[in-house]
Amino acid sequence: MKILITGGAGFVGARLARTLLARGELDGRRIERLVLADQAPGRPELLADPRVQARVGLLLAQCAALKDEAFDGVFHLASAVSGECEADFDLGLRSNLDSTRALLDALRARVEGGAPPTRLVFSSSVAVYGPDPAVLLPDVVADDTLPAPQTSYGTHKLICEHLVADYTRKGYIDGRAARLMTVTVRPGKPNGAASSFFSGIIREPLAGLPAVLPVDLSVSHPVSSPQRTVDGLIKVYEASREAFQGRTALNLPGLNVTVQQMLDALEAVAGPKVRALVQPQRDERIAGIVANWPRGASAARAERLGLRPEANFEDIIRQYIADQAEQGHTATALKGLQP
Amino acid sequence: MKILITGGAGFVGARLARTLLARGELDGRRIERLVLADQAPGRPELLADPRVQARVGLLLAQCAALKDEAFDGVFHLASAVSGECEADFDLGLRSNLDSTRALLDALRARVEGGAPPTRLVFSSSVAVYGPDPAVLLPDVVADDTLPAPQTSYGTHKLICEHLVADYTRKGYIDGRAARLMTVTVRPGKPNGAASSFFSGIIREPLAGLPAVLPVDLSVSHPVSSPQRTVDGLIKVYEASREAFQGRTALNLPGLNVTVQQMLDALEAVAGPKVRALVQPQRDERIAGIVANWPRGASAARAERLGLRPEANFEDIIRQYIADQAEQGHTATALKGLQP
Repeated sequence: MKILITGGAGFVGARLARTLLARGELDGRRIERLVLADQAPGRPELLADPRVQARVGLLLAQCAALKDEAFDGVFHLASAVSGECEADFDLGLRSNLDSTRALLDALRARVEGGAPPTRLVFSSSVAVYGPDPAVLLPDVVADDTLPAPQTSYGTHKLICEHLVADYTRKGYIDGRAARLMTVTVRPGKPNGAASSFFSGIIREPLAGLPAVLPVDLSVSHPVSSPQRTVDGLIKVYEASREAFQGRTALNLPGLNVTVQQMLDALEAVAGPKVRALVQPQRDERIAGIVANWPRGASAARAERLGLRPEANFEDIIRQYIADQAEQGHTATALKGLQP
Repeated sequence: MKILITGGAGFVGARLARTLLARGELDGRRIERLVLADQAPGRPELLADPRVQARVGLLLAQCAALKDEAFDGVFHLASAVSGECEADFDLGLRSNLDSTRALLDALRARVEGGAPPTRLVFSSSVAVYGPDPAVLLPDVVADDTLPAPQTSYGTHKLICEHLVADYTRKGYIDGRAARLMTVTVRPGKPNGAASSFFSGIIREPLAGLPAVLPVDLSVSHPVSSPQRTVDGLIKVYEASREAFQGRTALNLPGLNVTVQQMLDALEAVAGPKVRALVQPQRDERIAGIVANWPRGASAARAERLGLRPEANFEDIIRQYIADQAEQGHTATALKGLQP
């Protein structure tokens, strides 16, 4: 089978690609071709696999050609992130709305040409929820909590959820939208996402570097490790339509933790000296955005698919350390520590 | 002040125009110019008013020019209806999504050029609700019930609600979205809307013509008279942002009635012979669409603005008869009846 991952050079996309290549199959069918569409070039270790093909360029520009190319499945992860969308409104509209519409219309053109509908998993986000001042947001947002996004990013994700649902209803795709919790710990440099610090306050201290905490210790948020997130996307792809239930988006499982608990876990895993590298320095812009995010999430529909959140934040930190070790980057602060 | 009504030649748009012209003012300011944008030419009685200017053509084509023209307020009513969107997917996307986006971007361009944000009322619809099979829809949908549209029309309305909210959050417009209940009794011919029969079963018998009832007598639905609908749009325009509460859409008030109650009201107003002109003839396509609509709606936020639904369906029928009489079309079946 032939699979397309948009955003395939990104953090989640590349991990999804690696996981799919290691499995060798999806939904019981052998993966022969994995196409990674992204503005950035694909990761060298992925490109070395003969099944992988990278297509570098704007997704919007790539979509027209997709009308003439059959894919069995698509994971649509490409997206401008929250900070980028707040800074550049047009970029957000183009990257998140126009690109998704072009992708869906390319898949629709195939069906109108007689092909069966392509299965598509759309990565939505916990950022859809809001709340709006008129909406009383529960402490824990559920699959059927009213979304009222307070960022352009969340707005775009919600709009695309509904496009995916309507194209699915019409039989143009077999689409499923899954809301990702905040994925952490992300390696590398901070990105434009307002949630970037959720990774930074773990990643930088583990590398022996100081980190700034821009929000209060009491901030609570649903998070997920990269691997659980990828496992969730695959499970959503493989679910029957009946098991997925309806066409609305579902929440992927998240571990609801406070920043205090995250830092306690960091201390438990790496010691007090590492923990002490995190210094509070409130950033009103980031704190303001995060204040409008849910403090926790539930995931009843995903749990019925067999998905579970991590048991604790220490496990999420250990996954990051193990990933880094696998790539030969032993975290500086951990040199000499027992793994 | 200068006001734009998109869909200004339509049923609700023309009545809104007539009401605004009769009031002479909006939000305490004198109306000097009322622009009616529509694919159809405006109604002659409106065009005779020197304050009125009609612009005939596709809204999408008219939007670019709006960047260079100041309006104090916009009522955005133009839309392809549910039946049209189901029959022609591209038409629906273009008429409902692309046109709204172009309108919002034209207003945004003005703000980016230094103008204050234009106030905009967007007419959304009770059709946003659905339900989706995964969502348990309450018998009465409230302002904060989770929308899960089951038509392209409902999907587009919901998407535009969220665009209006995000452009408002960014300060590009001062937008408010109001969900119209099914407006009845519509004069003239049936249109492409699946809800068209809600008017047909009253309008045709009153004209002495047979009418087909395509759904069961037990079907229940929230309806509103044209005048209450227009009054609701004006009230939403005039509300302060604080009184409107938040940026999510609100429900305009609806009278929750069954088809049985509608026909009983018809008999009470016009007699059993008129009632007998309605013959059941189930239409699976229409019944299937309507089965996914809410059986009733509440409107707590609109009620806090002072808006109320009609007290009974007889009043809605009497409004239609009075409107027809005003235009010299005394309903055939009512000739000789006491008004």
